[in-house]
Amino acid sequence: MRIAVDAMGGDRAPSCVVEGLALAIKQGVASAEHVVLCGRTDALAPLLETHALAGVEIAEAPDVIAMTESAAQALRTKRGSSIHVGMKAVVDGRADAFISAGNTGAVVAAASVILGRLAHVHRPGIAVPMPSRRGPCVVIDMGANIYCKAEHLVQYAIMASEYAKAAFGRAQPSVGLLNIGEEDSKGNPLILEAHGRLQRVGINYYGFIEGQDIIGGTVDVVVCEGFVGNVVLKVAEGLGAFVTDQVREAFREHPPREEVARALDRSFRKLDYAEYGGAPLLGVKAPVLIGHGRSEARAVMNMIRVARSATEHSVIDHIVERLSSSRTGALS
Amino acid sequence: MRIAVDAMGGDRAPSCVVEGLALAIKQGVASAEHVVLCGRTDALAPLLETHALAGVEIAEAPDVIAMTESAAQALRTKRGSSIHVGMKAVVDGRADAFISAGNTGAVVAAASVILGRLAHVHRPGIAVPMPSRRGPCVVIDMGANIYCKAEHLVQYAIMASEYAKAAFGRAQPSVGLLNIGEEDSKGNPLILEAHGRLQRVGINYYGFIEGQDIIGGTVDVVVCEGFVGNVVLKVAEGLGAFVTDQVREAFREHPPREEVARALDRSFRKLDYAEYGGAPLLGVKAPVLIGHGRSEARAVMNMIRVARSATEHSVIDHIVERLSSSRTGALS
Repeated sequence: MRIAVDAMGGDRAPSCVVEGLALAIKQGVASAEHVVLCGRTDALAPLLETHALAGVEIAEAPDVIAMTESAAQALRTKRGSSIHVGMKAVVDGRADAFISAGNTGAVVAAASVILGRLAHVHRPGIAVPMPSRRGPCVVIDMGANIYCKAEHLVQYAIMASEYAKAAFGRAQPSVGLLNIGEEDSKGNPLILEAHGRLQRVGINYYGFIEGQDIIGGTVDVVVCEGFVGNVVLKVAEGLGAFVTDQVREAFREHPPREEVARALDRSFRKLDYAEYGGAPLLGVKAPVLIGHGRSEARAVMNMIRVARSATEHSVIDHIVERLSSSRTGALS
Repeated sequence: MRIAVDAMGGDRAPSCVVEGLALAIKQGVASAEHVVLCGRTDALAPLLETHALAGVEIAEAPDVIAMTESAAQALRTKRGSSIHVGMKAVVDGRADAFISAGNTGAVVAAASVILGRLAHVHRPGIAVPMPSRRGPCVVIDMGANIYCKAEHLVQYAIMASEYAKAAFGRAQPSVGLLNIGEEDSKGNPLILEAHGRLQRVGINYYGFIEGQDIIGGTVDVVVCEGFVGNVVLKVAEGLGAFVTDQVREAFREHPPREEVARALDRSFRKLDYAEYGGAPLLGVKAPVLIGHGRSEARAVMNMIRVARSATEHSVIDHIVERLSSSRTGALS
């Protein structure tokens, strides 16, 4: 089991990525030989030395894709980027999974073209584990695909359902379709078509849910089109940051007692993206995890943990099997 | 100046509505003669007596529309409902504005059909004042229209801009278009078409914004299609409730000092829908305010305050003028 790690992706790369790797090794999440670090050797070798990380392989990647760069252009012109090099390592069998906190569009494009999509999957989707009252709720798609068809939503439901089993141990994950009401007649044509089909693909389909049901933990998986998912994620992140600031401000002059501080810390951790180990891009031929651009060492470590678990649980094989049985009607 | 008040709409109607009216009168927001209470006289007369509210006119409305009832059917079959009676009071000139915390779909349908839409407005939109770091941010549409065209988004921008001036005293409200990135090339065809047109209609158009910019207070008005707006609102409400619960739980055994409690209370009030006085339905011929189904007395009072202010500031006239000048190109 080996994971290709994009060392150059993220606001504080490469230092933060190497720090995350060091943390992962220290905490027993992975060993040095589990990792291929993709990036510029001249930048990475000193960092590995600082963290006394011996035995970590570096795959030289001279090009760097900026966070704001056009994905299509980067895919064409920067074939020596850490994203390209990492994807090729997976294609060549030198790695089983890829993680990156870099340019999301570039990762999606490179994964689709270099790794390739699973059979019959037209549009891979990004699944984000979002906080809920009952643990992580997997929301798919958060913006990989903004030209969404009902077929895509159905595939998202099947793929994220398998992912929730493997990543969060849900036996029969319940899947909700995000809508603006719970009645069967509510929703636009895309939603209504998907609603009909989701009842016949052999998943544990709950039906329509609404925005408040995500944090409410009504279901394990929420399916929506990429535009909506992206907005939901950013609204939630913005609100989380706002509330954390407000509470901090309220305590500025009068710090809370230790028990209260600990309880608040536990609560706010639930709202912290870093806990969840990145968002899998589902629908491509290997585990690919996309981290937040702001990823810190802890987030990088959790991405390594999740990539390892996805590989060891053969998530991609399960997804392929379910997609195929949903097409042939051989549903369990 | 008179406001038709739907006394039968909302989860705790009519008692909560009458309580809100009593609060409004007590706090000088309105006088008894400013209000026409629409609902069942047998239910309302005793409540008015309990609150010692003399001189409040009741417009008898024998039918009641349930919160979950189909709007189209209710519009046809319940012509004696408080929503119908209130709208007719406005049409007949016995009231200037209408407020309801009842069935949103029924209010939208009745306002469109009975009051009528403004010239050239095909789809009225619901504008929700949402909390932000810089005071209320008006988000339109929150679900009145789920078949959105670029023309509708442009009209929403113009109308909500006028509303933000009148309701929140913003001199030149900045208007953002909700998208999933800030680059000019990002977004679906609907968004890209609206983006081009919004630059030419004489509003203070900021450009694209993302989900986190709503709470961030980047702009005064956010334009989006109804499906997205509805999801945003419900995600935000759900998160607000979650965080409030978590903080309460953290303090369960160790209540905070008084200064801290007051600071937290101020913060959470910013997230409280009841502060903002309901959501105007923009694009119909009179001020119509829609309240949350869970509206309490304070929310009802604030709706009365906002309806009064919208009437006195001639918001509808300003909207008509701006819509018309944006069509003839006579932009200020």
